[in-house]
Amino acid sequence: MVAELNFNNPTVVALARYGALVVGKMLFLLLLTSFFRVTRKVFSCPEDARSSYLGNAKTEDQVKKMLIKDDMIERVRRCVLNDMENIIPFLLLAPLYILTGPADSTALLLFQIFVGSRFVHTITYLFGMQPFRALAFTAGLCVNFYFVFHIFRNSHF
Amino acid sequence: MVAELNFNNPTVVALARYGALVVGKMLFLLLLTSFFRVTRKVFSCPEDARSSYLGNAKTEDQVKKMLIKDDMIERVRRCVLNDMENIIPFLLLAPLYILTGPADSTALLLFQIFVGSRFVHTITYLFGMQPFRALAFTAGLCVNFYFVFHIFRNSHF
Amino acid sequence: MVAELNFNNPTVVALARYGALVVGKMLFLLLLTSFFRVTRKVFSCPEDARSSYLGNAKTEDQVKKMLIKDDMIERVRRCVLNDMENIIPFLLLAPLYILTGPADSTALLLFQIFVGSRFVHTITYLFGMQPFRALAFTAGLCVNFYFVFHIFRNSHF
Repeated sequence: MVAELNFNNPTVVALARYGALVVGKMLFLLLLTSFFRVTRKVFSCPEDARSSYLGNAKTEDQVKKMLIKDDMIERVRRCVLNDMENIIPFLLLAPLYILTGPADSTALLLFQIFVGSRFVHTITYLFGMQPFRALAFTAGLCVNFYFVFHIFRNSHF
Repeated sequence: MVAELNFNNPTVVALARYGALVVGKMLFLLLLTSFFRVTRKVFSCPEDARSSYLGNAKTEDQVKKMLIKDDMIERVRRCVLNDMENIIPFLLLAPLYILTGPADSTALLLFQIFVGSRFVHTITYLFGMQPFRALAFTAGLCVNFYFVFHIFRNSHF
Repeated sequence: MVAELNFNNPTVVALARYGALVVGKMLFLLLLTSFFRVTRKVFSCPEDARSSYLGNAKTEDQVKKMLIKDDMIERVRRCVLNDMENIIPFLLLAPLYILTGPADSTALLLFQIFVGSRFVHTITYLFGMQPFRALAFTAGLCVNFYFVFHIFRNSHF
Protein backbone atom coordinates (compact mmCIF):
# COMPACT_ATOMS: atom_id res chain seq x y z
CA MET A 1 0.00 0.00 0.00
CA VAL A 2 1.39 3.41 -0.96
CA ALA A 3 1.46 6.50 1.25
CA GLU A 4 -1.50 8.85 0.75
CA LEU A 5 -1.72 12.60 1.26
CA ASN A 6 -4.72 12.72 3.60
CA PHE A 7 -5.37 13.02 7.34
CA ASN A 8 -5.52 9.21 7.81
CA ASN A 9 -1.74 9.45 7.47
CA PRO A 10 -0.37 10.83 10.78
CA THR A 11 2.70 12.22 8.97
CA VAL A 12 0.43 14.43 6.87
CA VAL A 13 -1.30 15.70 10.02
CA ALA A 14 2.12 16.47 11.51
CA LEU A 15 3.16 18.29 8.33
CA ALA A 16 -0.06 20.35 8.44
CA ARG A 17 0.55 21.34 12.07
CA TYR A 18 4.27 22.14 11.73
CA GLY A 19 3.78 23.68 8.30
CA ALA A 20 1.07 26.03 9.60
CA LEU A 21 3.36 26.98 12.50
CA VAL A 22 6.37 27.84 10.35
CA VAL A 23 4.35 29.62 7.63
CA GLY A 24 2.57 31.55 10.41
CA LYS A 25 5.99 32.66 11.67
CA MET A 26 6.90 33.82 8.16
CA LEU A 27 3.62 35.74 7.75
CA PHE A 28 4.23 37.33 11.15
CA LEU A 29 7.44 38.85 9.71
CA LEU A 30 5.36 40.45 6.92
CA LEU A 31 3.16 41.99 9.61
CA LEU A 32 6.28 43.14 11.47
CA THR A 33 7.62 44.81 8.29
CA SER A 34 4.35 46.72 7.83
CA PHE A 35 4.36 47.67 11.52
CA PHE A 36 7.95 49.00 11.33
CA ARG A 37 7.23 50.85 8.05
CA VAL A 38 4.30 52.73 9.61
CA THR A 39 5.88 53.40 13.02
CA ARG A 40 9.31 54.37 11.61
CA LYS A 41 7.74 56.12 8.59
CA VAL A 42 10.06 54.42 6.09
CA PHE A 43 8.44 53.27 2.84
CA SER A 44 9.38 51.73 -0.48
CA CYS A 45 6.90 53.74 -2.62
CA PRO A 46 6.38 57.53 -2.74
CA GLU A 47 2.57 57.10 -2.63
CA ASP A 48 2.92 55.35 0.77
CA ALA A 49 4.82 58.34 2.17
CA ARG A 50 2.20 60.73 0.78
CA SER A 51 -0.81 58.73 2.03
CA SER A 52 -2.53 60.44 4.97
CA TYR A 53 -3.06 56.97 6.52
CA LEU A 54 0.61 55.95 6.35
CA GLY A 55 3.43 58.50 6.01
CA ASN A 56 1.30 61.65 5.74
CA ALA A 57 4.19 63.51 4.06
CA LYS A 58 3.17 66.99 2.90
CA THR A 59 6.27 68.13 0.97
CA GLU A 60 8.48 66.35 -1.58
CA ASP A 61 11.35 66.73 0.89
CA GLN A 62 9.45 64.74 3.52
CA VAL A 63 8.63 62.09 0.89
CA LYS A 64 12.31 61.71 -0.05
CA LYS A 65 13.35 61.30 3.61
CA MET A 66 10.80 58.50 4.07
CA LEU A 67 12.23 56.55 1.12
CA ILE A 68 15.71 56.21 2.69
CA LYS A 69 16.40 52.61 3.73
CA ASP A 70 16.16 51.71 7.42
CA ASP A 71 18.59 49.17 8.92
CA MET A 72 16.02 47.32 11.03
CA ILE A 73 13.48 47.09 8.17
CA GLU A 74 16.18 45.83 5.77
CA ARG A 75 17.09 43.22 8.38
CA VAL A 76 13.49 42.00 8.61
CA ARG A 77 13.30 41.99 4.78
CA ARG A 78 16.42 39.81 4.52
CA CYS A 79 15.01 37.50 7.18
CA VAL A 80 11.77 37.12 5.16
CA LEU A 81 13.78 36.40 2.01
CA ASN A 82 15.86 33.78 3.80
CA ASP A 83 12.64 32.24 5.14
CA MET A 84 11.25 32.05 1.63
CA GLU A 85 14.43 30.46 0.30
CA ASN A 86 14.26 27.73 2.95
CA ILE A 87 10.69 27.30 4.24
CA ILE A 88 9.07 27.19 0.80
CA PRO A 89 11.42 24.43 -0.50
CA PHE A 90 10.72 22.55 2.76
CA LEU A 91 6.96 22.72 2.21
CA LEU A 92 7.33 21.69 -1.43
CA LEU A 93 9.67 18.78 -0.66
CA ALA A 94 7.91 17.49 2.48
CA PRO A 95 4.78 16.14 0.68
CA LEU A 96 6.99 14.40 -1.91
CA TYR A 97 9.05 12.98 0.97
CA ILE A 98 5.86 11.70 2.63
CA LEU A 99 4.86 10.02 -0.65
CA THR A 100 8.04 7.91 -0.49
CA GLY A 101 6.54 6.35 2.68
CA PRO A 102 9.10 7.18 5.42
CA ALA A 103 8.69 5.97 9.03
CA ASP A 104 6.32 8.31 10.92
CA SER A 105 8.83 8.93 13.71
CA THR A 106 11.67 9.84 11.30
CA ALA A 107 9.44 12.25 9.38
CA LEU A 108 8.20 13.86 12.61
CA LEU A 109 11.76 14.31 13.89
CA LEU A 110 12.85 15.98 10.62
CA PHE A 111 9.81 18.32 10.70
CA GLN A 112 10.63 19.26 14.29
CA ILE A 113 14.32 19.89 13.58
CA PHE A 114 13.44 22.06 10.58
CA VAL A 115 10.73 24.13 12.25
CA GLY A 116 12.84 24.53 15.40
CA SER A 117 15.87 25.64 13.36
CA ARG A 118 13.79 28.26 11.52
CA PHE A 119 12.43 29.73 14.75
CA VAL A 120 15.98 29.94 16.12
CA HIS A 121 17.08 31.46 12.78
CA THR A 122 14.46 34.22 12.95
CA ILE A 123 15.27 35.16 16.55
CA THR A 124 19.04 35.12 15.96
CA TYR A 125 18.56 37.15 12.74
CA LEU A 126 16.41 39.85 14.32
CA PHE A 127 18.79 40.22 17.28
CA GLY A 128 21.99 39.78 15.21
CA MET A 129 23.35 36.75 17.07
CA GLN A 130 26.21 34.96 15.32
CA PRO A 131 27.37 32.15 14.94
CA PHE A 132 23.97 30.83 16.16
CA ARG A 133 22.16 32.14 13.07
CA ALA A 134 24.63 30.35 10.78
CA LEU A 135 24.12 27.10 12.73
CA ALA A 136 20.31 27.36 12.58
CA PHE A 137 20.49 28.09 8.84
CA THR A 138 22.73 25.06 8.30
CA ALA A 139 20.44 22.74 10.29
CA GLY A 140 17.43 23.74 8.18
CA LEU A 141 19.38 23.42 4.93
CA CYS A 142 20.55 19.92 5.94
CA VAL A 143 16.94 18.77 6.39
CA ASN A 144 16.06 20.14 2.94
CA PHE A 145 19.08 18.42 1.34
CA TYR A 146 18.19 15.18 3.10
CA PHE A 147 14.69 15.42 1.56
CA VAL A 148 16.21 15.99 -1.90
CA PHE A 149 18.48 12.93 -1.69
CA HIS A 150 15.83 10.72 -0.09
CA ILE A 151 13.18 11.63 -2.69
CA PHE A 152 15.64 11.23 -5.55
CA ARG A 153 16.71 7.77 -4.36
CA ASN A 154 13.14 6.58 -3.74
CA SER A 155 11.41 7.68 -6.94
CA HIS A 156 12.12 5.25 -9.77
CA PHE A 157 9.81 5.26 -12.76
CA MET B 1 -14.39 9.85 5.62
CA VAL B 2 -11.41 12.19 5.30
CA ALA B 3 -10.97 14.88 2.65
CA GLU B 4 -8.93 13.79 -0.37
CA LEU B 5 -6.76 15.87 -2.69
CA ASN B 6 -8.31 14.85 -6.02
CA PHE B 7 -10.84 16.24 -8.49
CA ASN B 8 -13.75 14.30 -6.90
CA ASN B 9 -13.48 16.97 -4.20
CA PRO B 10 -15.03 20.20 -5.61
CA THR B 11 -12.88 22.31 -3.28
CA VAL B 12 -9.74 20.91 -4.94
CA VAL B 13 -11.16 21.79 -8.37
CA ALA B 14 -11.87 25.32 -7.12
CA LEU B 15 -8.32 25.60 -5.74
CA ALA B 16 -6.91 24.45 -9.10
CA ARG B 17 -8.94 27.06 -10.98
CA TYR B 18 -8.30 29.99 -8.63
CA GLY B 19 -4.70 28.90 -8.04
CA ALA B 20 -3.98 28.81 -11.79
CA LEU B 21 -5.57 32.26 -12.11
CA VAL B 22 -3.50 33.90 -9.38
CA VAL B 23 -0.22 32.19 -10.34
CA GLY B 24 -0.91 33.19 -13.95
CA LYS B 25 -1.21 36.80 -12.77
CA MET B 26 2.14 36.49 -10.97
CA LEU B 27 3.83 34.98 -14.05
CA PHE B 28 2.38 37.80 -16.14
CA LEU B 29 4.35 40.25 -13.94
CA LEU B 30 7.57 38.36 -14.83
CA LEU B 31 6.70 38.83 -18.50
CA LEU B 32 5.98 42.52 -17.83
CA THR B 33 9.40 42.93 -16.17
CA SER B 34 11.15 41.40 -19.21
CA PHE B 35 9.06 43.60 -21.52
CA PHE B 36 9.96 46.78 -19.59
CA ARG B 37 13.65 45.77 -19.43
CA VAL B 38 13.87 45.39 -23.21
CA THR B 39 11.74 48.43 -24.15
CA ARG B 40 13.33 50.75 -21.54
CA LYS B 41 16.78 49.21 -22.03
CA VAL B 42 17.42 48.81 -18.30
CA PHE B 43 19.09 45.58 -17.20
CA SER B 44 20.49 43.91 -14.11
CA CYS B 45 23.50 42.25 -15.81
CA PRO B 46 26.16 43.85 -18.05
CA GLU B 47 25.92 40.95 -20.55
CA ASP B 48 22.22 41.81 -21.11
CA ALA B 49 23.13 45.39 -21.99
CA ARG B 50 25.86 44.16 -24.37
CA SER B 51 23.70 41.52 -26.07
CA SER B 52 22.73 42.52 -29.60
CA TYR B 53 19.27 40.99 -28.98
CA LEU B 54 18.58 43.01 -25.81
CA GLY B 55 20.44 46.23 -24.98
CA ASN B 56 22.83 46.27 -27.94
CA ALA B 57 25.24 48.56 -26.04
CA LYS B 58 28.47 49.17 -27.98
CA THR B 59 30.56 51.12 -25.42
CA GLU B 60 31.16 50.61 -21.69
CA ASP B 61 29.47 53.98 -21.11
CA GLN B 62 26.27 52.74 -22.74
CA VAL B 63 26.46 49.55 -20.61
CA LYS B 64 26.75 51.56 -17.39
CA LYS B 65 23.76 53.72 -18.28
CA MET B 66 21.62 50.61 -18.86
CA LEU B 67 22.44 49.26 -15.38
CA ILE B 68 20.92 52.26 -13.55
CA LYS B 69 17.70 51.30 -11.74
CA ASP B 70 14.39 52.32 -13.29
CA ASP B 71 11.49 53.38 -11.03
CA MET B 72 8.79 51.49 -12.93
CA ILE B 73 10.82 48.27 -13.17
CA GLU B 74 11.66 48.43 -9.45
CA ARG B 75 7.93 48.88 -8.78
CA VAL B 76 7.08 45.75 -10.79
CA ARG B 77 9.90 43.88 -8.99
CA ARG B 78 8.52 44.84 -5.56
CA CYS B 79 5.05 43.79 -6.71
CA VAL B 80 6.40 40.36 -7.76
CA LEU B 81 8.18 39.99 -4.41
CA ASN B 82 5.01 40.88 -2.51
CA ASP B 83 3.10 38.37 -4.64
CA MET B 84 5.60 35.68 -3.77
CA GLU B 85 5.40 36.50 -0.05
CA ASN B 86 1.63 36.12 -0.11
CA ILE B 87 0.50 33.93 -3.03
CA ILE B 88 3.02 31.15 -2.38
CA PRO B 89 2.04 30.76 1.32
CA PHE B 90 -1.60 30.74 0.17
CA LEU B 91 -0.95 27.89 -2.28
CA LEU B 92 1.04 25.95 0.32
CA LEU B 93 -1.58 26.43 3.06
CA ALA B 94 -4.71 25.90 0.93
CA PRO B 95 -4.17 22.13 0.32
CA LEU B 96 -3.51 21.61 4.05
CA TYR B 97 -6.67 23.62 4.78
CA ILE B 98 -8.64 21.41 2.37
CA LEU B 99 -7.32 18.31 4.18
CA THR B 100 -8.97 19.52 7.41
CA GLY B 101 -12.32 19.08 5.58
CA PRO B 102 -13.87 22.58 5.56
CA ALA B 103 -17.33 23.28 4.09
CA ASP B 104 -17.08 23.70 0.30
CA SER B 105 -18.80 27.09 0.33
CA THR B 106 -16.51 28.50 3.06
CA ALA B 107 -13.40 27.33 1.23
CA LEU B 108 -14.66 28.76 -2.06
CA LEU B 109 -15.42 32.13 -0.46
CA LEU B 110 -11.93 32.31 1.08
CA PHE B 111 -10.29 31.43 -2.28
CA GLN B 112 -12.34 34.15 -3.98
CA ILE B 113 -11.52 36.80 -1.36
CA PHE B 114 -7.81 35.96 -1.59
CA VAL B 115 -7.56 35.89 -5.37
CA GLY B 116 -9.69 39.04 -5.67
CA SER B 117 -7.53 40.86 -3.10
CA ARG B 118 -4.34 39.96 -4.98
CA PHE B 119 -5.69 41.24 -8.31
CA VAL B 120 -6.69 44.50 -6.61
CA HIS B 121 -3.23 44.58 -4.96
CA THR B 122 -1.40 44.26 -8.29
CA ILE B 123 -3.47 46.98 -10.00
CA THR B 124 -3.18 49.38 -7.05
CA TYR B 125 0.56 48.66 -6.81
CA LEU B 126 1.29 49.28 -10.49
CA PHE B 127 -0.72 52.51 -10.49
CA GLY B 128 0.40 53.63 -7.00
CA MET B 129 -3.06 53.82 -5.42
CA GLN B 130 -3.08 54.10 -1.62
CA PRO B 131 -4.73 53.25 0.80
CA PHE B 132 -6.39 50.68 -1.50
CA ARG B 133 -3.18 48.69 -1.90
CA ALA B 134 -2.77 48.46 1.89
CA LEU B 135 -6.37 47.24 2.25
CA ALA B 136 -5.96 44.60 -0.48
CA PHE B 137 -2.70 43.42 1.12
CA THR B 138 -4.43 43.16 4.51
CA ALA B 139 -7.38 41.19 3.11
CA GLY B 140 -5.04 38.62 1.54
CA LEU B 141 -2.92 38.37 4.68
CA CYS B 142 -6.07 37.79 6.80
CA VAL B 143 -7.05 34.80 4.63
CA ASN B 144 -3.55 33.35 5.04
CA PHE B 145 -3.61 33.86 8.83
CA TYR B 146 -7.07 32.29 8.98
CA PHE B 147 -5.66 29.23 7.19
CA VAL B 148 -2.77 29.04 9.67
CA PHE B 149 -5.06 29.13 12.73
CA HIS B 150 -7.64 26.78 11.21
CA ILE B 151 -5.01 24.19 10.19
CA PHE B 152 -3.25 24.43 13.54
CA ARG B 153 -6.50 23.89 15.47
CA ASN B 154 -7.63 20.99 13.26
CA SER B 155 -4.47 18.90 13.08
CA HIS B 156 -4.05 16.81 16.24
CA PHE B 157 -1.76 13.84 16.12
CA MET C 1 -11.40 7.32 -12.31
CA VAL C 2 -9.68 10.56 -11.28
CA ALA C 3 -5.92 11.11 -11.03
CA GLU C 4 -4.50 10.61 -7.54
CA LEU C 5 -1.45 12.22 -5.92
CA ASN C 6 0.36 9.06 -4.82
CA PHE C 7 3.21 6.88 -6.07
CA ASN C 8 0.83 4.51 -7.91
CA ASN C 9 0.63 7.34 -10.43
CA PRO C 10 3.88 7.31 -12.47
CA THR C 11 3.51 11.05 -13.21
CA VAL C 12 3.70 11.78 -9.47
CA VAL C 13 6.86 9.67 -9.20
CA ALA C 14 8.34 11.63 -12.13
CA LEU C 15 7.38 14.93 -10.47
CA ALA C 16 9.04 13.80 -7.22
CA ARG C 17 12.25 12.89 -9.04
CA TYR C 18 12.47 15.99 -11.26
CA GLY C 19 11.17 18.25 -8.47
CA ALA C 20 13.87 17.01 -6.06
CA LEU C 21 16.48 17.58 -8.78
CA VAL C 22 15.50 21.16 -9.54
CA VAL C 23 14.95 22.15 -5.88
CA GLY C 24 18.31 20.56 -5.07
CA LYS C 25 19.87 22.80 -7.72
CA MET C 26 18.23 25.86 -6.12
CA LEU C 27 19.42 24.86 -2.63
CA PHE C 28 22.91 24.38 -4.05
CA LEU C 29 22.88 28.08 -5.02
CA LEU C 30 22.15 28.97 -1.36
CA LEU C 31 25.19 26.94 -0.38
CA LEU C 32 27.22 28.70 -3.10
CA THR C 33 26.14 32.11 -1.74
CA SER C 34 27.30 31.17 1.77
CA PHE C 35 30.55 29.80 0.36
CA PHE C 36 31.24 33.02 -1.60
CA ARG C 37 30.32 35.19 1.40
CA VAL C 38 32.83 33.44 3.64
CA THR C 39 35.65 33.11 1.08
CA ARG C 40 35.23 36.65 -0.31
CA LYS C 41 34.44 38.08 3.15
CA VAL C 42 31.39 40.01 1.92
CA PHE C 43 28.34 39.98 4.20
CA SER C 44 24.88 41.48 4.47
CA CYS C 45 24.91 41.97 8.28
CA PRO C 46 27.56 43.72 10.44
CA GLU C 47 27.46 40.86 13.01
CA ASP C 48 28.58 38.43 10.27
CA ALA C 49 31.61 40.59 9.52
CA ARG C 50 32.44 40.80 13.24
CA SER C 51 31.99 37.06 13.92
CA SER C 52 35.31 35.32 14.51
CA TYR C 53 33.96 32.32 12.56
CA LEU C 54 33.00 34.33 9.46
CA GLY C 55 34.46 37.77 8.71
CA ASN C 56 36.59 38.16 11.84
CA ALA C 57 36.64 41.96 11.40
CA LYS C 58 38.35 43.73 14.30
CA THR C 59 37.71 47.41 13.49
CA GLU C 60 34.59 49.25 12.32
CA ASP C 61 36.48 50.11 9.14
CA GLN C 62 36.96 46.43 8.33
CA VAL C 63 33.26 45.81 9.03
CA LYS C 64 32.21 48.55 6.60
CA LYS C 65 34.43 47.18 3.84
CA MET C 66 32.85 43.72 4.22
CA LEU C 67 29.35 45.15 3.76
CA ILE C 68 30.08 46.50 0.24
CA LYS C 69 28.22 44.51 -2.42
CA ASP C 70 30.17 41.99 -4.48
CA ASP C 71 29.32 41.49 -8.19
CA MET C 72 29.55 37.69 -8.16
CA ILE C 73 27.48 37.33 -4.98
CA GLU C 74 24.80 39.69 -6.34
CA ARG C 75 24.74 37.58 -9.50
CA VAL C 76 24.16 34.39 -7.50
CA ARG C 77 21.47 36.21 -5.46
CA ARG C 78 19.64 37.29 -8.62
CA CYS C 79 19.90 33.75 -9.95
CA VAL C 80 18.31 32.40 -6.73
CA LEU C 81 15.53 34.99 -6.96
CA ASN C 82 14.85 34.06 -10.58
CA ASP C 83 14.79 30.40 -9.57
CA MET C 84 12.24 31.15 -6.87
CA GLU C 85 10.06 33.12 -9.29
CA ASN C 86 9.98 30.19 -11.71
CA ILE C 87 10.69 26.90 -9.91
CA ILE C 88 8.26 27.51 -7.05
CA PRO C 89 5.30 28.29 -9.39
CA PHE C 90 6.25 25.15 -11.35
CA LEU C 91 6.13 22.98 -8.21
CA LEU C 92 2.83 24.55 -7.13
CA LEU C 93 1.22 24.17 -10.56
CA ALA C 94 2.55 20.69 -11.42
CA PRO C 95 0.44 18.79 -8.82
CA LEU C 96 -2.69 20.67 -9.96
CA TYR C 97 -1.76 19.82 -13.54
CA ILE C 98 -1.41 16.14 -12.60
CA LEU C 99 -4.87 16.24 -10.98
CA THR C 100 -6.38 17.18 -14.37
CA GLY C 101 -5.21 13.73 -15.57
CA PRO C 102 -2.79 14.49 -18.44
CA ALA C 103 -1.13 11.72 -20.49
CA ASP C 104 1.94 10.41 -18.63
CA SER C 105 4.25 10.99 -21.58
CA THR C 106 3.12 14.62 -22.07
CA ALA C 107 3.57 15.41 -18.38
CA LEU C 108 7.01 13.77 -18.36
CA LEU C 109 8.12 15.76 -21.41
CA LEU C 110 6.99 19.04 -19.82
CA PHE C 111 8.83 18.22 -16.57
CA GLN C 112 11.98 17.42 -18.53
CA ILE C 113 11.80 20.62 -20.62
CA PHE C 114 11.27 22.73 -17.49
CA VAL C 115 14.02 21.13 -15.39
CA GLY C 116 16.44 21.16 -18.34
CA SER C 117 15.70 24.84 -19.04
CA ARG C 118 16.36 25.79 -15.40
CA PHE C 119 19.72 23.98 -15.36
CA VAL C 120 20.70 25.80 -18.57
CA HIS C 121 19.43 29.06 -17.03
CA THR C 122 21.61 28.68 -13.91
CA ILE C 123 24.76 27.88 -15.89
CA THR C 124 24.19 30.70 -18.39
CA TYR C 125 23.40 33.12 -15.53
CA LEU C 126 26.51 32.30 -13.49
CA PHE C 127 28.75 32.59 -16.57
CA GLY C 128 26.88 35.55 -18.11
CA MET C 129 25.98 33.90 -21.40
CA GLN C 130 23.37 35.75 -23.46
CA PRO C 131 21.05 35.21 -25.38
CA PHE C 132 21.08 31.61 -24.08
CA ARG C 133 19.92 32.68 -20.61
CA ALA C 134 16.96 34.57 -22.10
CA LEU C 135 16.01 31.49 -24.16
CA ALA C 136 16.23 29.14 -21.16
CA PHE C 137 14.13 31.57 -19.08
CA THR C 138 11.52 31.73 -21.86
CA ALA C 139 11.33 27.93 -22.21
CA GLY C 140 10.67 27.51 -18.47
CA LEU C 141 8.10 30.33 -18.44
CA CYS C 142 6.27 28.73 -21.39
CA VAL C 143 5.89 25.45 -19.46
CA ASN C 144 4.47 27.35 -16.47
CA PHE C 145 2.03 29.29 -18.68
CA TYR C 146 0.97 26.06 -20.38
CA PHE C 147 0.19 24.62 -16.90
CA VAL C 148 -1.87 27.71 -16.05
CA PHE C 149 -3.98 27.51 -19.21
CA HIS C 150 -4.36 23.73 -19.06
CA ILE C 151 -5.45 23.75 -15.38
CA PHE C 152 -7.81 26.65 -15.96
CA ARG C 153 -9.48 24.91 -18.92
CA ASN C 154 -9.76 21.56 -17.11
CA SER C 155 -11.16 22.62 -13.74
CA HIS C 156 -14.91 23.25 -13.96
CA PHE C 157 -16.89 23.23 -10.75
